[in-house]
Amino acid sequence: MDPRFINTIPSLRYDDDKCDDEYAFVKALCMSGGDGANSYSANSRLQKKVLSMAKPVLVRNTEEMMMNLDFPTYIKVAELGCSSGQNSFLAIFEIINTINVLCQHVNKNSPEIDCCLNDLPENDFNTTFKFVPFFNKELMITNKSSCFVYGAPGSFYSRLFSRNSLHLIHSSYALHWLSKVPEKLENNKGNLYITSSSPQSAYKAYLNQFQKDFTMFLRLRSEEIVSNGRMVLTFIGRNTLNDPLYRDCCHFWTLLSNSLRDLVFEGLVSESKLDAFNMPFYDPNVQELKEVIQKEGSFEINELESHGFDLGHYYEEDDFEAGRNEANGIRAVSEPMLIAHFGEEIIDTLFDKYAYHVTQHANCRNKTTVSLVVSLTKK
Amino acid sequence: MDPRFINTIPSLRYDDDKCDDEYAFVKALCMSGGDGANSYSANSRLQKKVLSMAKPVLVRNTEEMMMNLDFPTYIKVAELGCSSGQNSFLAIFEIINTINVLCQHVNKNSPEIDCCLNDLPENDFNTTFKFVPFFNKELMITNKSSCFVYGAPGSFYSRLFSRNSLHLIHSSYALHWLSKVPEKLENNKGNLYITSSSPQSAYKAYLNQFQKDFTMFLRLRSEEIVSNGRMVLTFIGRNTLNDPLYRDCCHFWTLLSNSLRDLVFEGLVSESKLDAFNMPFYDPNVQELKEVIQKEGSFEINELESHGFDLGHYYEEDDFEAGRNEANGIRAVSEPMLIAHFGEEIIDTLFDKYAYHVTQHANCRNKTTVSLVVSLTKK
Repeated sequence: MDPRFINTIPSLRYDDDKCDDEYAFVKALCMSGGDGANSYSANSRLQKKVLSMAKPVLVRNTEEMMMNLDFPTYIKVAELGCSSGQNSFLAIFEIINTINVLCQHVNKNSPEIDCCLNDLPENDFNTTFKFVPFFNKELMITNKSSCFVYGAPGSFYSRLFSRNSLHLIHSSYALHWLSKVPEKLENNKGNLYITSSSPQSAYKAYLNQFQKDFTMFLRLRSEEIVSNGRMVLTFIGRNTLNDPLYRDCCHFWTLLSNSLRDLVFEGLVSESKLDAFNMPFYDPNVQELKEVIQKEGSFEINELESHGFDLGHYYEEDDFEAGRNEANGIRAVSEPMLIAHFGEEIIDTLFDKYAYHVTQHANCRNKTTVSLVVSLTKK
Repeated sequence: MDPRFINTIPSLRYDDDKCDDEYAFVKALCMSGGDGANSYSANSRLQKKVLSMAKPVLVRNTEEMMMNLDFPTYIKVAELGCSSGQNSFLAIFEIINTINVLCQHVNKNSPEIDCCLNDLPENDFNTTFKFVPFFNKELMITNKSSCFVYGAPGSFYSRLFSRNSLHLIHSSYALHWLSKVPEKLENNKGNLYITSSSPQSAYKAYLNQFQKDFTMFLRLRSEEIVSNGRMVLTFIGRNTLNDPLYRDCCHFWTLLSNSLRDLVFEGLVSESKLDAFNMPFYDPNVQELKEVIQKEGSFEINELESHGFDLGHYYEEDDFEAGRNEANGIRAVSEPMLIAHFGEEIIDTLFDKYAYHVTQHANCRNKTTVSLVVSLTKK
């Protein structure tokens, strides 16, 4: 086999722009693997809560898909951005359970179901796959059925599935990750994301990248999903409609910026290193989301809901514990990127700072961050 | 979710027999992961050689499948027992290349291709998935095409794919692994597999387990593969037709038995520990293989070839290096099981002994071990 097969550098990118070596850390965009104390698998209570919030929409769309497609004998489901561990299976379980309950209710045979769990090739699929036998055992006990579980490694900003093969797509807390840090991000030094002190150009660069990425996502999925197939997508979004720069004072990236600035102040991180780090992330509002979907044109919007968002505070009365929980949650989703850019040695200190900053905002009530749930039907 | 989802013990088994706790090490049946010095990925030159031997059969069957199915626009291929690393992609590459060259030759559009890489859930899929971007880049350079790569974790002694979904199945050096150690293995103490000193009952127990497993394999695959779909399977087999116990003196399991007995002699392993260890492995001869296929009845045999087998000697003139190579090759396929049963501390010493035993057989020429390549068409 050609030696290039071994030596080529992987890329998250779907376009042919010049390689952004300055943002090499984006290649480390994946959740922390394994099942240790700082892993995504052990720090994803928020994701569970988010799924339970989106569950009614997911159940309704699964049922409608089955009925509109006249109870197919074979169903292929994709979970995009599944990450690692048991959480990969939560939505899939709800989907299969919904299908089986519905089929029983209307006296139809349950279909055979392929479940494709997607994430980037660097994701820890090994930890997820170890749960497959338990998952199918659980399905057998509760549903007297099973499914075929596959891993689908790749960026959802590229084609992942063959033409007209999918019936249902679910994605939770993944699509706010962009394919890359926007180009032309200037004068946003000291911040790793948009804040009130950012220039308008930073907002425009981020919005532009989101529009480009999400349009590409919809176009790719429209090729893969059958007509009348459904998508249920949950994003981190924002509820502000006017000032596009405004984020509340306890926004998680603002607190992470503050924590990194503490380390700059203490001489543990150089100012230029911090300036060179920006999150490949965007939190759209309802209008921005709707506009991209309508402009792309392949999907009909069924519902678009906005829900409250709470990082770790919802199950702790103790401020210190709440700070620690939120720090662990943010660490689990950002650690590989932070290590790739800043090195491993600052991480523990960084999230101690983060937990402290959270405690300083215990009484903030003016939250701009929300969860957006949108369900779509392929035209 | 039900706590049983977390606490249940996985099983390689497809039947409901009582759990064989005495053979708990079988649950560790997978190749050594990662890409370190003792990994499967770094010690699989033999597997590459075997694939190049089976390549003409694979190419011919791929071409015939495409022509007999009248050039489908979508093809689903499965690689069963893919193990980890680059080798997972070798056969898949040949298959896709064959399809594309053929389509170009007869002026047809290339199909979209799903490639499902299967192995047990404990396999190191992470190492394999990291190669997916390189693999598709290589395909783009050489074939101007790509494919969709999936991981399919599970035992091939259970259903892995939905009904009538596969067009081509390939498996190399995987099906000689049984689903479990045969029951009723008595009076075979001091050996981890059949040798000339084993009782006839050991042979019967192993043959019976192989017949049961391979029949199950064929029945399951016959449900998954379309009519006129093809399978190309390569086994480790034997070329003896009369004495079913006879294996040559330098058979790899005989040398591993000898090495373990050395450790018993040196007090590093207890005799009872060795007696309790048997390989979940069988090396059928051509007749035994043919008989199971014909009796099961779902597949037509196209060709059944027997090829020479050489573990590490073929590329080394130096006896010491040859011994080391063979030891590394056998270590890569057996280490997880050996560690699960004997513990990690004996492994280095064990394979030093093994390498030494190989050098003592440098001039053996009477080889009973062969590679069997069989190609089948679904009726």
